[in-house]
Amino acid sequence: MEMSIILGVSLLGLIVAGLLARWVLAQDQGPESMQRISAAIRLGAQAFMRRQNWTIVKIAVPLAGLLFFLYYGVRETTAHDPADQLTLSLWTTISFVLGAGCSLIAGYVGMWIAIRTNVRTAAAARTTLNGALQTALRGGAVSGLLVVAMSLLGVGGLYAVAQMSGATAQVTQIPLLIVGYGFGASLVALFAQVGGGIYTKAADVGADLVGKVEAGIPEDDPRNPAVIADLVGDNVGDCAGRGADLFESTAAENIGAMIIAATLAKTVPTASAEVIMGVMLFPLVARAFGIVASILGLLFTKIREDQDPMTGLNRGYYVTSLLSAVGFFIATQWLVKPLAEASGHPDAWLQFFFCGLIGVATAQAFVYITQYYTEYKYRPVKEIADASLTGPATNVIAGIAVGLESTVWPIVTVSGAIVGSYLLGDAAMPNGGLFGTAVATMGMLGTAGYILAMDTFGPITDNAGGIVEMSNQPEEIRKRTDRLDAVGNTTKALTKGYAVGSAALAAFLLFSAYLEEVRNFGVDIKAVDLSKPEVFVGGMLGAMLVFWFSALTIRAVGRAAKQVIEAVRVQFAPFRKNGKLELPETFEPDYGAVVDIVTRGALRQMVMPGIIVVAMPIAVGLVFKAIGDALEKKGLGAEVVAGFLMVGTIAGILMALFLNNAGGAWDNAKKYIETGAHGGKRSEPHKAAVVGDTVGDPFKDTAGPSLHVLIKLLSTITLVLAPLFL
Amino acid sequence: MEMSIILGVSLLGLIVAGLLARWVLAQDQGPESMQRISAAIRLGAQAFMRRQNWTIVKIAVPLAGLLFFLYYGVRETTAHDPADQLTLSLWTTISFVLGAGCSLIAGYVGMWIAIRTNVRTAAAARTTLNGALQTALRGGAVSGLLVVAMSLLGVGGLYAVAQMSGATAQVTQIPLLIVGYGFGASLVALFAQVGGGIYTKAADVGADLVGKVEAGIPEDDPRNPAVIADLVGDNVGDCAGRGADLFESTAAENIGAMIIAATLAKTVPTASAEVIMGVMLFPLVARAFGIVASILGLLFTKIREDQDPMTGLNRGYYVTSLLSAVGFFIATQWLVKPLAEASGHPDAWLQFFFCGLIGVATAQAFVYITQYYTEYKYRPVKEIADASLTGPATNVIAGIAVGLESTVWPIVTVSGAIVGSYLLGDAAMPNGGLFGTAVATMGMLGTAGYILAMDTFGPITDNAGGIVEMSNQPEEIRKRTDRLDAVGNTTKALTKGYAVGSAALAAFLLFSAYLEEVRNFGVDIKAVDLSKPEVFVGGMLGAMLVFWFSALTIRAVGRAAKQVIEAVRVQFAPFRKNGKLELPETFEPDYGAVVDIVTRGALRQMVMPGIIVVAMPIAVGLVFKAIGDALEKKGLGAEVVAGFLMVGTIAGILMALFLNNAGGAWDNAKKYIETGAHGGKRSEPHKAAVVGDTVGDPFKDTAGPSLHVLIKLLSTITLVLAPLFL
Repeated sequence: MEMSIILGVSLLGLIVAGLLARWVLAQDQGPESMQRISAAIRLGAQAFMRRQNWTIVKIAVPLAGLLFFLYYGVRETTAHDPADQLTLSLWTTISFVLGAGCSLIAGYVGMWIAIRTNVRTAAAARTTLNGALQTALRGGAVSGLLVVAMSLLGVGGLYAVAQMSGATAQVTQIPLLIVGYGFGASLVALFAQVGGGIYTKAADVGADLVGKVEAGIPEDDPRNPAVIADLVGDNVGDCAGRGADLFESTAAENIGAMIIAATLAKTVPTASAEVIMGVMLFPLVARAFGIVASILGLLFTKIREDQDPMTGLNRGYYVTSLLSAVGFFIATQWLVKPLAEASGHPDAWLQFFFCGLIGVATAQAFVYITQYYTEYKYRPVKEIADASLTGPATNVIAGIAVGLESTVWPIVTVSGAIVGSYLLGDAAMPNGGLFGTAVATMGMLGTAGYILAMDTFGPITDNAGGIVEMSNQPEEIRKRTDRLDAVGNTTKALTKGYAVGSAALAAFLLFSAYLEEVRNFGVDIKAVDLSKPEVFVGGMLGAMLVFWFSALTIRAVGRAAKQVIEAVRVQFAPFRKNGKLELPETFEPDYGAVVDIVTRGALRQMVMPGIIVVAMPIAVGLVFKAIGDALEKKGLGAEVVAGFLMVGTIAGILMALFLNNAGGAWDNAKKYIETGAHGGKRSEPHKAAVVGDTVGDPFKDTAGPSLHVLIKLLSTITLVLAPLFL
Repeated sequence: MEMSIILGVSLLGLIVAGLLARWVLAQDQGPESMQRISAAIRLGAQAFMRRQNWTIVKIAVPLAGLLFFLYYGVRETTAHDPADQLTLSLWTTISFVLGAGCSLIAGYVGMWIAIRTNVRTAAAARTTLNGALQTALRGGAVSGLLVVAMSLLGVGGLYAVAQMSGATAQVTQIPLLIVGYGFGASLVALFAQVGGGIYTKAADVGADLVGKVEAGIPEDDPRNPAVIADLVGDNVGDCAGRGADLFESTAAENIGAMIIAATLAKTVPTASAEVIMGVMLFPLVARAFGIVASILGLLFTKIREDQDPMTGLNRGYYVTSLLSAVGFFIATQWLVKPLAEASGHPDAWLQFFFCGLIGVATAQAFVYITQYYTEYKYRPVKEIADASLTGPATNVIAGIAVGLESTVWPIVTVSGAIVGSYLLGDAAMPNGGLFGTAVATMGMLGTAGYILAMDTFGPITDNAGGIVEMSNQPEEIRKRTDRLDAVGNTTKALTKGYAVGSAALAAFLLFSAYLEEVRNFGVDIKAVDLSKPEVFVGGMLGAMLVFWFSALTIRAVGRAAKQVIEAVRVQFAPFRKNGKLELPETFEPDYGAVVDIVTRGALRQMVMPGIIVVAMPIAVGLVFKAIGDALEKKGLGAEVVAGFLMVGTIAGILMALFLNNAGGAWDNAKKYIETGAHGGKRSEPHKAAVVGDTVGDPFKDTAGPSLHVLIKLLSTITLVLAPLFL
């Protein structure tokens, strides 16, 4: 029954995504002038994605081999293994490959539909705002539903196969076989986000500096050779990157929650096998209900011509949240109540439901806090705009101060959510604390499908605006796409807040899953004791990884942008006379050359940050395992890795909040000045604000979002490699 | 014997400082034109310091009252208390007051001599470079020796009094009575560093933006009303701030090391009372030998007229390091060997001596790494300078990337030092691991006196350069002071590296002292277990405090600088005709008005960051103590505070490294371009580099150095308040 719901809803999600895609593709593509631009974007995005995916495959396949080798060839079996050595090794490797493959496909298909929706949105904007909104949102929904449905199908399917094939004797040990799925998904997500993030900002920064600043031509001017690369970047960075990010979020969270649920179930000796199964599948069923809620919410989203598009999106989100809470209630009563009753605490299921509501409330809180720090209605962005009056330096100083400050309330919120759901769960039934935090995380991620649709909406409308601009459409149409574009900027910022918030909440769940796994393998790790010098050092190294990784990704943007600038200068050179640039109106640049340079630059620069994230936890684990073996301290390696993971996660959350919010605030401080404040466009304060905005670009679209993925990759990589550190 | 050495050397240090001060004061003060400027600086600095100290007193006195009230009125006594309630409360409060008072005096006297040395250095520069160097270094030495000698005298004196008065039955519990000394010192250091840091950079940024950028007059132009405030800032920020910083470093480290030594001694039941006493006083004796080494090193420093001044300073430093290692060897053999023999591991003392050498090596490594990241001979600074070619935005991006990256090697170094000294100590004798890390910290801090003298050398030469500039001395003299000034910039950067490195190494010692103290009070805390949700949340909040505090201090500079700009604009207003500023050559501005504004601004802005640092650990401790009491989890409050402290420290170290090194690198990228690279002064790349340099100002001179103090304040505050969280 549970499994049929899980697999059935996954398939339903895929079918709805297919139907929406068919609907979008059937829309009018507009005049030839639009189609020509869209085709150029399409070509560039596909070329990049193909080469990026190929690079990822070239990294993932040897890694899969290494994984199998480490499990099968190096590791010694223990009496606690969930299966014999070959089975365990094969399952881990195959689920890794499957996770990586599904993530690649989800990202690619999402991008595939986005680059076809953009021109249709632009075409629809010629008649009505609602038509354009519908097109963009449905295009986004394809990507959103695909991601959540495939993530669920993968975990659910692997579970079903493992159960049917009898790969392990105990059903509660199945999650230990399929942890590779989360790792595969995270690994692809990391490279997709880092590569796409570098691409999008290198093109953006490069195009701006060489076009707006050096040549003095407007943004999205068709004569700028980097302008298509810039539009391609929106698709491969924001759209494909965030899709992969949330794909792995949901996958990792599903597996982690199942491990925690299994642990709880084992503490209730009177629970029947069926009850235990039910609790273990509870996270997947709740997710399935969340997908249904997202589908309904997406269908509800509609606006009148004179309405703020954000109103429609918000209404849809409230509907989704409400439905997902109802689904959560049903799932809790159905699947958690039996265990609660068996444990002698019949009302515990209701308290767990409240834990889920804590998660829903946390999602809302993150959305509000993000808005406060990044919208120009409020104090922080105004402060940055005011600081622009005394030049770029004070603008940058103010932005950094705002970004650093913006970490305060999110951390207080997550702290409250973790401690609150833990204490609530602990009071509900014995050993229920961790399950309480797991349920809160599930509550927060319940609306992921809708959120992701809103997120992909962003790059689609951004592209539509660019197409309208470049094909010289009338003012009225531009106004429509500008309104949608502004909404898209907001939804993109909100999604980032949601992504980092859910990463923070999921982190505690994933640590606990890691420790539980270590215990499952027979090493009774009592604590992750920071007062041990080795663990403290592990923590320092974890936090350092966050700083190092941020340095590499931020620098990568600078380096790749420089190559863009040089390539554009070459194309402009024939028109430079006596040091002055005179660009004819009819100049048709070679877009492909710049697209090619950004592609190569981004792919080259994404390798190093990706590798250190994978290599450092392995190195730390193996070095301290060796020290532990020499000193006869059993489990030292696993404990040090836990310290590495936990402190690294804390540093990652804070750094991601800082980078995302500083970047968003700078962006909107510039937009605020462009509304006419402090002298408006082209004034000195505006120039200062442009500097801040450019500094914020790699913060908010490269390093920040990549850190979300890094946090979760650290968790999944340690989950997969835990047996090696023992 | 031990005590006579400790107190005798402290007094010797004070006497030498007095003699050096007399020597400096006897030097020629130069012509009236120099004296007039120096007098203005003196007036401003003294006025600020008096008001700042008064503000600190107004915060510290009620805090002392609160401390007494909490200890005597709120806290319940336990059977494990080192003394009866009144004695314990009085000792804690009095040692707090004494620590605060000594720190205030050390800072004030150091500043007092610095603002008198500056003009004498300028005067000496009229004849020889060596004369100027000697004057500046001896002025710096007064401050350096004063700080280390008073710190030692305070801890040693309190110990002696506690022992003689029989305040506690067991000699090993004396450190628990005097932990207040470290807290008092840190509290003053925090406010001194934050207030002085805001002052110096608000004046600097304000003077530059309104003078160089707006009015187009050169730096240090006497017509700029903010120029005296800028020179005052060097004294109150760099000089008084860092003095207070290292005062508390040495004080806190002394007390922490004594607690660890006592713990180790108690594990050797065969050790006689005399042997135990010897080990406990070992940290103080080693420090005393370090002071002697610093005095000799300072007397060795001499250069020839054609030599690089840095050569002379380096030679002196090597001599000091060598002598301090010899002293360390003697102290270890004398005081640690008896304990090692009693424990049946007669050679252990030698291994502990090697731990000390690890500390010395760590100090050297930090100095080298800091140079690599902040000098323009090397790749990082060149990268920033190159990025200036494409404008201020890419310059800022490159600087941030360099700053983030610069955390990697220092963290690897500290990690190696902590684990290395721990394992070495652990192998030397049972339970010797922590003592090993303590000895490494002592080794690192052995040369603090010399380092501090070099540091104070910086603001003195900076001031001397300003005086020479403003009094229109001939080119040749300017060249001499410029050379000294460049050296001063290097020594300031190195000291910051040394300060953060020693804070990182000392951190582990201080945590352990905290846990040891908690255990001494009868709560057997087994671990600081990050896998408990409460402790994890404590860690998150600790890291968040670092971000919040950085935000407040960085923003404070921006706000105070804005007030400077506005005040200067008022003075310039009469000369602004048709939007153009025509400043007569003879214009004599009202320096005092600006000094007054910066003073008030800095004092107002320093309160909030100071308060959150004190309030947050108390709040976290009390809230989680209440939760722990409700759930009957004994010691939860203390464990959560430990998590708060440890993760906060890790975040603080990384953030301080990032801020200090990014700031230093931006500064030198600008200087590199000023040597003629990329078009030299007044080129577009230079303008871009000035933006980066200004952004870096609050990073490297306000937030970064304040974070060193924050790290140690967190340790000392938790040490003092530990009994309240139980």
